[in-house]
Amino acid sequence: MIRVAVLGSTGSIGTSTLDVIASQPERLSLVGIAARSNIGVLAQQIARHRPRLVAVFEAEQAAALRRQVNGAVLVRAGVEGLRELATHPDVDIVVVGTSGREALVPLIRAIESGKRIALASKELLVMAGELIMRLVREHGTSLIPVDSEHAALFQALQGVPREEVARLIVTGSGGPLWGLDRAAMAHVTRQQVLHHPKWQMGPKITVDSATLMNKGLELIEAQWLFGMTLSRLGVIIHPQALIHALVELVDGSCLAQLSVCDMRLPIQYALSYPQRWPTPLPGVRWQDLSGAQFFEPDPERFPCLRLALEAARAGGTACAALSAANDAAVWAYLRDELAFLDIPHVIAETLQQHAPSAHPTLDDILKTDDWARQTAQELIRARQRVSVPAA
Amino acid sequence: MIRVAVLGSTGSIGTSTLDVIASQPERLSLVGIAARSNIGVLAQQIARHRPRLVAVFEAEQAAALRRQVNGAVLVRAGVEGLRELATHPDVDIVVVGTSGREALVPLIRAIESGKRIALASKELLVMAGELIMRLVREHGTSLIPVDSEHAALFQALQGVPREEVARLIVTGSGGPLWGLDRAAMAHVTRQQVLHHPKWQMGPKITVDSATLMNKGLELIEAQWLFGMTLSRLGVIIHPQALIHALVELVDGSCLAQLSVCDMRLPIQYALSYPQRWPTPLPGVRWQDLSGAQFFEPDPERFPCLRLALEAARAGGTACAALSAANDAAVWAYLRDELAFLDIPHVIAETLQQHAPSAHPTLDDILKTDDWARQTAQELIRARQRVSVPAA
Repeated sequence: MIRVAVLGSTGSIGTSTLDVIASQPERLSLVGIAARSNIGVLAQQIARHRPRLVAVFEAEQAAALRRQVNGAVLVRAGVEGLRELATHPDVDIVVVGTSGREALVPLIRAIESGKRIALASKELLVMAGELIMRLVREHGTSLIPVDSEHAALFQALQGVPREEVARLIVTGSGGPLWGLDRAAMAHVTRQQVLHHPKWQMGPKITVDSATLMNKGLELIEAQWLFGMTLSRLGVIIHPQALIHALVELVDGSCLAQLSVCDMRLPIQYALSYPQRWPTPLPGVRWQDLSGAQFFEPDPERFPCLRLALEAARAGGTACAALSAANDAAVWAYLRDELAFLDIPHVIAETLQQHAPSAHPTLDDILKTDDWARQTAQELIRARQRVSVPAA
Repeated sequence: MIRVAVLGSTGSIGTSTLDVIASQPERLSLVGIAARSNIGVLAQQIARHRPRLVAVFEAEQAAALRRQVNGAVLVRAGVEGLRELATHPDVDIVVVGTSGREALVPLIRAIESGKRIALASKELLVMAGELIMRLVREHGTSLIPVDSEHAALFQALQGVPREEVARLIVTGSGGPLWGLDRAAMAHVTRQQVLHHPKWQMGPKITVDSATLMNKGLELIEAQWLFGMTLSRLGVIIHPQALIHALVELVDGSCLAQLSVCDMRLPIQYALSYPQRWPTPLPGVRWQDLSGAQFFEPDPERFPCLRLALEAARAGGTACAALSAANDAAVWAYLRDELAFLDIPHVIAETLQQHAPSAHPTLDDILKTDDWARQTAQELIRARQRVSVPAA
C-alpha cells in the first residue's frame, strides 16, 4: 500500500489525484490533504475520501472546518500544518499540486524527510530547481514529474541512459490563442483565453497556455528535472496534443510518448512508479493521430516564451523573478487589472530591473519572489494610472 | 571491440552492415562474411573490408574466389563454411542478413555457441520462431531484431516491463501499391511493384511489401521476439514511414519509435546494444511528421495479410509452410511465371493442403519447407498450363 499526502487537494491536480487514489483502493491510501481555500470542497473531500489529517492555510479556516467535520479528522493550520502533513511518518509520497510559493517550504521539508515527491507544480521548480534537485540527490529520494509533458519525457526516458539523449522536446497544443495574430490577440476576451482546446485546468495555467509562458516554464522545469542544458531542449506546437514529448537520441532515432489528455494518467504513473498500473481510461486512438500537425512556435507572436528563455539563460534567481512577475501579471489579468498583451511587458520590465544572483539559497529565492511580485504590482498599477481616461 | 560475422554480406542488409562496421572502426571489427552468390561483389567487399574468413555456398564459387583474392583471406564453402563462420571463437555477434533457409542451421549453431544474434531475416523466425527462441533462452544469449519495425519495438520496450504492455503495433508504409484497388492491381508492372516508396530493399521483400505479406510475416516475427499472442499485436499503415512501431501500455499511454528509413540505424543499434552510439545520419525532422497519416490495412485488398494471420493462428508448421509457399510464389512472380494477383492463391492453396504439426523440430520445419516449396511450384506450373493459350 502506497500512502499519499496531497498538497493542493481542491485544485485541478488535487481532485484528479483523489480520483486516482479512490480508483486504486488496493494499492493507494490517502493519509492527508491540504488546501489554501475552498473549505466547502475540502469538507466534501473529507467526507468522501476520509483522510486522517487536513491542513489549511488560515487558522480561522481551520476552525470553520473543524466545526463542519465535527472531529472526524485532524485539522491543522498554517505553514506548520503543511509541514506536518508533508513530513508525516505514515506518508510515502507527497503530491504537490499547488503552484503557490507557500508550497515551497513544505516541499523542501518533504524531500528532507526522504519522501518521494510527485510534482505537478512547474512554478516551484522554476523558482528553486537547483536547490530542489540538489536536496533530492542529497536525501536519496526521487521527484517524479506530473506535468504531462515531463511525465511523458520521464516515461520515454525509462530505458535510455542519459548520455544517449541528444535533445528533449516538449510539445504544446498552442493553447487557446494559437492561430491568432498579435492584432487579434489585442481583442480576445477572458472567456476565449480561459477556453483551452485540450486541457481542463485552473485559470492561471490556462492563461500561461494562451501566452505560451507555460512552454517557457516547462523548458526551465525540464532543465532541472533531466539535467539538460537549454540548448538540448526544444518546444514544438502540436495542436492535437496526442504526442506529449519526444526524446531525440544520439543516433538520430527518436522516442515519443502519446496519451489522451487526462491528468489522471501522469498522476497515477507518478504514484505507481516504477510500476505502471492499468486504468479504465481510453487509450490513444491512432486514428486521431492522422493529420496531426507540428509547428515551430513563434516568439514574436508569443513573447512570453522568449522571456522565459532569456531568464533561463540568465540563470540564478532570474527564473524565480520571471515566475513571480508572471504570476502577478496573470492574476492581475484575471482580475481585469491588466490587458492580455501587457502581461509580457510587465514581466520584461520586472526582469530588466532584476540583477540575478547565482546559486540562490531558499532565502534568496523567497526574497526574489517577494521583490518581483511587488515590482510587477507596481508596474501594473502604473499602467492602470496611465490607462484611466481623464474625467 | 565487438567482433562481427555477417551472413548474407552482399544483400541489402549485408552491405549496410559492412558500412556500419566501417563507420565505427574503434568499436566494431569484421571477422568474416558469407554470401550465396555475387562473387564479384564479395571480392570487392574482401578488398575493402578485409575479413579474415569468407564462406560461400558452392565449392566452385569458393575455388573461383580463392583465385581472385589470391590467399588474402581464408575461403570456405558450403554449409560447413557457414557453420565455421557462425561459430568462430573470435566472433561475438552474428548478423543474419539472408532470408534463405540455408541460414537456419548456421543460425542455430551460432545460438548454440552462445553468439549474440542480430537477426534481419524475418523468414527464419517465421519458419522456426518457437525453436529459435527456445534455444536463445537455453543458451543464455540474446537475439536482437534488425527488421526496422521490430528494432523500433525493441527500443521502445527497453524501459518497459513486459506485463505493462497492452499491445504492440508495427507500422507499414503500405508498400508500392497502397492506394490501388484490386482491379488496378491486376495491371501493375513489375517495375511498379519493385519501386518501394520508402525503403531500398531486395526484390523479395519489396514484393512482400506490395502484397502486405511483409506485415503478416512481421506479426509472426513479433509473436516470437516479444512473447506476445496474436491478439496483442496489430498493424497500421502509415505511408510516411516515420513512426515504425507503437507500444500501447496498460494504462492507455503509448510509446512510439521514430527514425528516418535507413537500415544502418537498426543495424548499428543491434551491434551496439545495450549501448547506443552516435551516427552521422540525419535525425527525424518533426516537420515531416506534420500531416502524417494512419490507416487500417484492408485484408480484402491485401489477402496475403489475412493468410499470414490464419497461419499464425494455426501455429506449428503452418507458418513455415506459409513462408515457403510465399517465397516460391514471389520468386515465380519475379521470373514472370506467376501473375501478381495469383501470389495469394498459390499460398492459400498450399496452406489448404498442409496439416500443421505442433511444436516442430528442426527436421519437421525443413521438411515442411521442402514440401511447401514443391507444392507451391506444382500449383504455379498448373496455373501456367491453364493460362497458356491454345496453339
